[in-house]
Parts: sequence; C-alpha cells; structure tokens
Amino acid sequence: MDRRYTEDELIAKLFAPLAGPAALGLMDDAALLPPCVNPMVATVDALVAGVHFFPEDPADSIAKKALRANLSDLAAKGAEPIGFLLALALPPDWTNQWLEAFAAGLAEDCKAFGCPLLGGDTVATPGPLTLSITALGEAAQGSFVGRSGARPGDALYVSGTIGDAALGLRLRRDAALRAGLSPKARDYLLERYLLPRPRLALAPLLRTSASAAMDVSDGLVGDLAKLARASRVAARVTTRDIPLSEAAREAIAIDPTLFELALTGGDDYEILFCARGNASEIERLASAASAPCVMIGEIIAGDGETIFLDAQENIMKFNRLSFSHF
Amino acid sequence: MDRRYTEDELIAKLFAPLAGPAALGLMDDAALLPPCVNPMVATVDALVAGVHFFPEDPADSIAKKALRANLSDLAAKGAEPIGFLLALALPPDWTNQWLEAFAAGLAEDCKAFGCPLLGGDTVATPGPLTLSITALGEAAQGSFVGRSGARPGDALYVSGTIGDAALGLRLRRDAALRAGLSPKARDYLLERYLLPRPRLALAPLLRTSASAAMDVSDGLVGDLAKLARASRVAARVTTRDIPLSEAAREAIAIDPTLFELALTGGDDYEILFCARGNASEIERLASAASAPCVMIGEIIAGDGETIFLDAQENIMKFNRLSFSHF
Repeated sequence: MDRRYTEDELIAKLFAPLAGPAALGLMDDAALLPPCVNPMVATVDALVAGVHFFPEDPADSIAKKALRANLSDLAAKGAEPIGFLLALALPPDWTNQWLEAFAAGLAEDCKAFGCPLLGGDTVATPGPLTLSITALGEAAQGSFVGRSGARPGDALYVSGTIGDAALGLRLRRDAALRAGLSPKARDYLLERYLLPRPRLALAPLLRTSASAAMDVSDGLVGDLAKLARASRVAARVTTRDIPLSEAAREAIAIDPTLFELALTGGDDYEILFCARGNASEIERLASAASAPCVMIGEIIAGDGETIFLDAQENIMKFNRLSFSHF
Repeated sequence: MDRRYTEDELIAKLFAPLAGPAALGLMDDAALLPPCVNPMVATVDALVAGVHFFPEDPADSIAKKALRANLSDLAAKGAEPIGFLLALALPPDWTNQWLEAFAAGLAEDCKAFGCPLLGGDTVATPGPLTLSITALGEAAQGSFVGRSGARPGDALYVSGTIGDAALGLRLRRDAALRAGLSPKARDYLLERYLLPRPRLALAPLLRTSASAAMDVSDGLVGDLAKLARASRVAARVTTRDIPLSEAAREAIAIDPTLFELALTGGDDYEILFCARGNASEIERLASAASAPCVMIGEIIAGDGETIFLDAQENIMKFNRLSFSHF
C-alpha cells in the first residue's frame, strides 16, 4: 500500500495475530487474564534506539531483543511466561515495511517462547524509536527464586557463555578488532549482541535447586555484587572457570584487555544462580535442559563483597563494575 | 546535591517509597504478586512529551496523568487497582528537582488510588521524555465489564462532564479564547487537561449493572463508535443530554464550534457505559459513589452505527470522530 497503516490497521493486521485469548482481540481497554492460583511475576524493560540498540538493526531482531530481555527476567525467577504488553513509540520516519518486520519477529518469538501479546499502545514520537515491554509470568507456589536467598556454602553457577554480547557491541564500533577476527567468530559475537537467548529452559531447575538467581544483563561483575548485597553474603569467583565462547576466546587472544570487558559488559542475558548440593548433578540437569551451566565460584560469609581471582589466584581489580544504559 | 542521582540512588530515594510489598524493594529482577483468585486485568499506556503533554507541564502532573490514564482503563473494566510498572526514558536535561517532583506526584496518586509501584526501568533517551505505565487490576469473578456486551434496549450513560480536557488543551494554544473566558472557567479547563480523574469509584456499580463499558479517552463520538462496533449494535445519543461543565458551556457560548471539539476531543477519562433498568436508580447510585453519571442515549439494533441528535433532533455530522496521538 502507498500510505502508512492507521492505528486500527496496524493493530488488526500486525498485532492482533500475536495476541492471546486474554487480549480480547486487542479491542478492549484492558486484557482479561484468568485467575492465577500461583504467584505471578511482573517485569518491565525499556529500550531506546541509539542507546540499547542501533537504529539500523533489523526490525525483527529489535522486537526479539526487547521481548527476550524480559523473558530472561522471568526465567531467572523460575517463572513460565504468561504474556506481555508492548508500548511502542514510533519515530516520524517509520514505514509499513519496518513495522511488518518488527511484528513478524515478535510473532516468531511469541510462538517460540509461548508468550502471547496481551495488550499494547502505539504512539508517535518526534524522538528515537522507544519500546517498553512488560512481561507477566507464573511462578510455582513457594518456589519464587529471588536475589536474596544465597547463603554461605552455596555454589555459584552461570549459564551459557559470558561476554559475547559485550564483545559483539565492541565489534560494531571497532573496525580493527572486527578485521582481526575470523568471520565465524565475528558473526557469532555480532549475533549474540543482537539476539539474547533467554534461558527459560532453566526455570524448572531453578525452582527446585536454586537458593537465589538473577539474570546477567549489566555485566557479570556488577550483577554478582547486586546479588551478594541482596543476600547479605560475599561471593568468590574463579575467573578461569567463567565460561567463554570460542569466539570470545579468539577476541581476548587478540586483545587481553577484552577479558575485563567480557566480565563487565552488558546484555549477556544469562542466569547467575546459587545452589547447594552436587555440582556435577546440577551441571548435568542443566545440560539435559539444553541450557548448560557451570560452577564459577562459591558464596561465603560477608556483606556484598565480591572477589574475582585470576589464573594466578590474585584478586582482580576492575575499572568499572557494570554497564549502565542510564 | 550538586550531581545528578545515580540509577541506584533514584530507585532507593525516589521510587522505593512508592513500592508495594510485591515489588521486593525494587531490588529484584521482577515483582512477585500473590495468587489472584479473581481474574486480573492488564493495560498499558505510553505518553511522550510534546505529544501527550507539554514538556513544561509540572512534573507531578505528568506523573499523575500517566498513572490516571491507566487507572481509568481499570475503572472502566470494573476492576480494582493492584499496582503498576513504570518505564521512564529521561531526556538529557533531566534534573534531580524534576525527578523529585515527578516521584512526589506519583507517590500522592499511589496513595490516593491504592495503587503501589510494582517495578520499573529508568533509561536515558536523546529524545523527549517518554513514559509508559502498565497497570494491573483485579476484576470480580464473572463481572469483567467488556466493550462487547451492549444490547438493544440498554440505556447509555456517561460519567462526569465531557470535553473539558479537550477545551483545556485548546486554551493552551488559543490566547484569544483564553482571554475571553472567566478566570474560573479558564483555570478549571486547564486543570482538567492536566489531571484526569479516574472513575474508580464507579467500578462497583459497573460490576453489578453495566452490560458494557469503556473509558472515553479519544473523544466521546469516536469511542462510542468503538463500543458499538465491539458490541455489534448501534447507539443513539441526544446531545443536549451530554453533561457539560459550566466552564465548557462558557467556552461554547463564545465559540459554538467548540461543541464539536468537546464531543470529539480526547483526554476525558470518563466512563461510557450501558445498562438496563431504572435510569434514575443508576444515576442515584453513581451520585452516591461521588461519580455522577447521566443517561445520554440508548443502544439500538445495528452494526456499529452511531447517531448524535442535536437540539432540533437533527443528525449531527462531525468533521472528525476522535482524537489520535498516533
């Protein structure tokens, strides 16, 4: 079509297909959710073009990143997705094609993660594209996994690999590094920045085994400090045990200072959690759930301190602890 | 203080005091809501400076307007507030003083409407101030008031007075009109634009008596058409019965074309609803709840048509049906 969609058209054509029954066809003032016998969890994330993603990123990956950042929070709480609400502020130059790709990406993830659209609001902005997603999830009775339950003696685990997204972001801005990497490593890191992988597959294991958990979104070092403060404990990490992808290792081999970036950069969307019991059994269960985790340290007595030991067992110092979009 | 708040500081000092127990001190990845034996309703609204409000509006009224727009949706569904999540994108020139006033306004409304903060995300934007609120509410079992239940023979009611906010917005931009009004009328209309009055007091009456309801946020004429379409009925309104404030009457006396603006402008945040039964009894119950309502017409057979009759019982034509921020 030659003209842009009206608000009614974009709701009917692009967003209604993503909606669950609770959304009432996106035709009412509010979604109507059935009673929830279990506790519900709710989380919100806002993303701004030029701040949280590049305006030129593919529209479908922008949509997916926004949803997945929220799903990662649900996963970290051991919750299963119920659905989400989307607030979308479109800049003056939006096109039907862009919005179709955005909705198509969102539709793929709604289906892949079992998380339908519950409601939304689309508005115009003279500024950059801005979107905010509120995700709702269902926790199992009595098994919400907070940040404050870590106790001395717990082992500390992290899922997936750390630092890939931060290195991917660096690659976007550092042509020399980009040129120095193998095409495979380059593409892998760039993709990891674009598309988080929310670890919903870990939610059942967290519900049964974790004393505390959080999603790593602002950098492992700073986020572990948050968990330690919330639990009023300290944490000791053996950095050689922190899982790194082959691509991250390749980048760090070129520039060893990137190791610190990997540990303090944001956008990992992996799960950091604490648990008692047999570590190899927990690692086995995580692998069986297709969400590999490894033990990287332990919780000790303290009040928010974090200790990161390098390969020589020396305490590492970081120039900054975490990444902030604020 | 001379420097601006860090993200941790503004959470701890400004937003944590607004948080309910479910927010876990705003220190976790997500809020944890207790099980809800009743159905839950969820709604989201986004507001952009320069689009939905004036950037120079008082910070406390910006906060209140954003929350109240959502509370109005809950009220229209016959729901009681549970709480809300806030996504706040701050422009480069934000100040501590502005944010303190914003949080103070929000705190007043959290208390006044029994709607605590459940979670939030604060980010930086190079663009205008943008905020998005997702409100959650509890509907009574079996008494959710949708838009689709209106039936021929129902009477049509509206709460409060119509058009005040649209006239207040016009006043902001029309110095001649502003000068022509009495100070009292001018101040009243300006205040009605700044501060919606969500009709939560009507929720119990809607639950027991309404066949359909919605909040009037984009103009009475266009919103009634939405309700009629959702219910697959038609509606006939006697425009002389539409409640107008003294201030609105004063403005319309100066410029009779403003009557159309009153009926098609946005931001009323009043409740439009349909009900059977004794009209004077419904109006009495609404007054007793301090949310006066009047009957303005009736639902008839049809498929989305709306008929507005003027004082001479002629069918009115409107240049546009409703106001859109999109």
